[in-house]
Amino acid sequence: MNIDKLASASFTEEAIQLGKQAKAAARRLAVLSSEDKNQALQLMADRLEAQSAFLIDENQNDLNAAKKAGITGAVLDRIALTSSRVQSMAKGLREIAALPDPVREIVKMWRRPNGLQVGKMRIPLGVIGIIYEARPNVTADAAALCLKSGNAVILRGGSEAHHSNQAIGKVLQAACGETAVPQHAIQVVQSTDRALVHEMLQLESYIDLIIPRGGEELIRAVVANSKVPVIKHYKGVCHVYVDIDAELDMAERICLNAKIQRPSVCNAMETLLVHEAIASEFLPPLIAKYRDAGVEIRGCDKTCALVPGIKKANEEDWTTEYLDLILAVRVVKDMDQAIAHIEQYGSEHTESIITTDYRRSKQFIERVNSSAVMVNASTRFNDGGELGLGAEIGISTSKIHAFGPMGLEELTTTKFIVFGDGQIRE
Amino acid sequence: MNIDKLASASFTEEAIQLGKQAKAAARRLAVLSSEDKNQALQLMADRLEAQSAFLIDENQNDLNAAKKAGITGAVLDRIALTSSRVQSMAKGLREIAALPDPVREIVKMWRRPNGLQVGKMRIPLGVIGIIYEARPNVTADAAALCLKSGNAVILRGGSEAHHSNQAIGKVLQAACGETAVPQHAIQVVQSTDRALVHEMLQLESYIDLIIPRGGEELIRAVVANSKVPVIKHYKGVCHVYVDIDAELDMAERICLNAKIQRPSVCNAMETLLVHEAIASEFLPPLIAKYRDAGVEIRGCDKTCALVPGIKKANEEDWTTEYLDLILAVRVVKDMDQAIAHIEQYGSEHTESIITTDYRRSKQFIERVNSSAVMVNASTRFNDGGELGLGAEIGISTSKIHAFGPMGLEELTTTKFIVFGDGQIRE
Repeated sequence: MNIDKLASASFTEEAIQLGKQAKAAARRLAVLSSEDKNQALQLMADRLEAQSAFLIDENQNDLNAAKKAGITGAVLDRIALTSSRVQSMAKGLREIAALPDPVREIVKMWRRPNGLQVGKMRIPLGVIGIIYEARPNVTADAAALCLKSGNAVILRGGSEAHHSNQAIGKVLQAACGETAVPQHAIQVVQSTDRALVHEMLQLESYIDLIIPRGGEELIRAVVANSKVPVIKHYKGVCHVYVDIDAELDMAERICLNAKIQRPSVCNAMETLLVHEAIASEFLPPLIAKYRDAGVEIRGCDKTCALVPGIKKANEEDWTTEYLDLILAVRVVKDMDQAIAHIEQYGSEHTESIITTDYRRSKQFIERVNSSAVMVNASTRFNDGGELGLGAEIGISTSKIHAFGPMGLEELTTTKFIVFGDGQIRE
Repeated sequence: MNIDKLASASFTEEAIQLGKQAKAAARRLAVLSSEDKNQALQLMADRLEAQSAFLIDENQNDLNAAKKAGITGAVLDRIALTSSRVQSMAKGLREIAALPDPVREIVKMWRRPNGLQVGKMRIPLGVIGIIYEARPNVTADAAALCLKSGNAVILRGGSEAHHSNQAIGKVLQAACGETAVPQHAIQVVQSTDRALVHEMLQLESYIDLIIPRGGEELIRAVVANSKVPVIKHYKGVCHVYVDIDAELDMAERICLNAKIQRPSVCNAMETLLVHEAIASEFLPPLIAKYRDAGVEIRGCDKTCALVPGIKKANEEDWTTEYLDLILAVRVVKDMDQAIAHIEQYGSEHTESIITTDYRRSKQFIERVNSSAVMVNASTRFNDGGELGLGAEIGISTSKIHAFGPMGLEELTTTKFIVFGDGQIRE
């Protein structure tokens, strides 16, 4: 008897069970009032705080296991729950409750010559599967964003946070149970076996969207195996281009902020492009400040000629997402060359031009097709909260369905609504 | 030596070549003016007409091969090009030229408390792959819709129309060559081997979206094998629900139209639901008219009791897309039961309520989440042209990116645009 096959069949069943329950819950969620959903979110927040000790206890099991497995540093820290982190999860839930409900919004409406009134109305996607790394806070955030947008969610977090995720899930579900929200609106996968993830990815009849959050390897594996649509977020190789007409003080302020304020995130600048006419004035003092802040510079030939002791950038540097205090710098002939560089090496994530020239600001905005294109602002603003979406479930770098930060609206779709007086087709 | 492997490697190369060329063309297309694109579309239309004899000659090769292969009837007719069909392709292209250009439309714009002006601007998706059956007119239509929306397209039509598609592609490309549109904006795949299709589906670095048009089997195979996002169109099991308060004349007119006007298409009604209180008045005369029109009725027990000689519907009938002069009829207790039926058996395509009751019209619109939900109108209106989108490249039944008819707007995405005055993140 083939154990593999047996095991796989049982995972298929388990996944289908999750999917069926989620789909049934999604039908009921789709027609709930905003008040009902907000009441559940508020109660979820209250209960997370009230059960803080339980959550921290359960988290201790994960931390102990992680330490035994030799996990340390930033990764261990990401898994850890403290009372202030639980409070901040609860705060996040209350913020989501306060956001406008996108469901049943009528996006537009028009009239046809035959008198039909036609419109588009927002509706939930249905069932969303989230596959993520060992970050317990994602369990609460993602559940809340999906609930507010009327979607049922199946959460599958990293196994290193298994006990924490189960505990958070239990608290959230119990809170929902006291409200109008259906029991299976939020489901946290119990199995830690990857076979179950594989089975989830086959459920195109039950799951409408998969959002993987984590490293590129995880995301590529999900894309390669999924029959369910996937919204993916690959890397961010973000550029700032400092134009000949830039105000240099502003340019310096933005360049320092875009690299240093939080280098480990996808919207941090990785490559700086500088117009050749201002490079000798602009770069040396900026690079001195970068060095004071511990930033390693990798420069093109011209950059290296301007400032002594700079490591020469190689071809790979232009495509690397360092996520660290390292910056590639290139001197370019003009905006055309900057845009050509961005098209050749960039990742269509975030690019900013620093300029005082009206025409070039407009051209840069129109010609660069990244998920966020900016004038005189730090790339660090490409974030759902900063752009005004309220909260985000991720940043999409694929152009299908959503491009850039995904907020509540991006967790919905639209249906056509048609009001007639007996019209038929001739 | 393994011939299979050799062959596959050469297809990989061919597909990558197509992808690279398309991606380069897409970059140039994205920044073309509407005038440049419209000029190309007009010229494409002129040249199709001027080369009508050449197209019909080439089509003859396909027709001869098809006849040899025993293809007859409707399938053979679909492949055939006549001078009036070429004219109608040209007319389609001119209509697309006359539609508004969605590219660079600023969809909305808002201001953040820190003074950042943030907006969303429409941009093309990039490269679109269309995989379709043997319908030569799709080659021209799809190419025109993609071009107008600023996308490069790779067209892979059914091999039974191979010569026709190659000829149409040649004419369209030659016309583009005389305009600002880049050479590889429109590419028609030359190989008829399915291995090339498989390779296309792996090109997530070059192709942004795959749209399969054809039977369910083709679409499922594409979904199962594609790393590129797919927008799919499965079946349409469309319902009309005739409410207790329906105006019966109007209801009859709509029911006849929804079933009979063109039974072979996805937005034709497949199941009729009738409120029990009006069934005995409404159904017998309607069913008599259906029978006069050659429609076979498959009814629930109550329907069979009302009209003699009706075949009893089985469970399978409720989920079947007949695409033919067959109609399933069920008498229901009320709107709740009608909606429950639609949720259990429907395909989320198109549903219409016939009623004079204000409250139920509003509830039906809000509670039924199909791609088009209608009041007092024929399901046959769920069509891009009829709803006012101008033209359509297909009807999506998945909720990601687009739900329902896809026009030019649905072939675009939006990027965030951000205008600052030196803002940085604190």
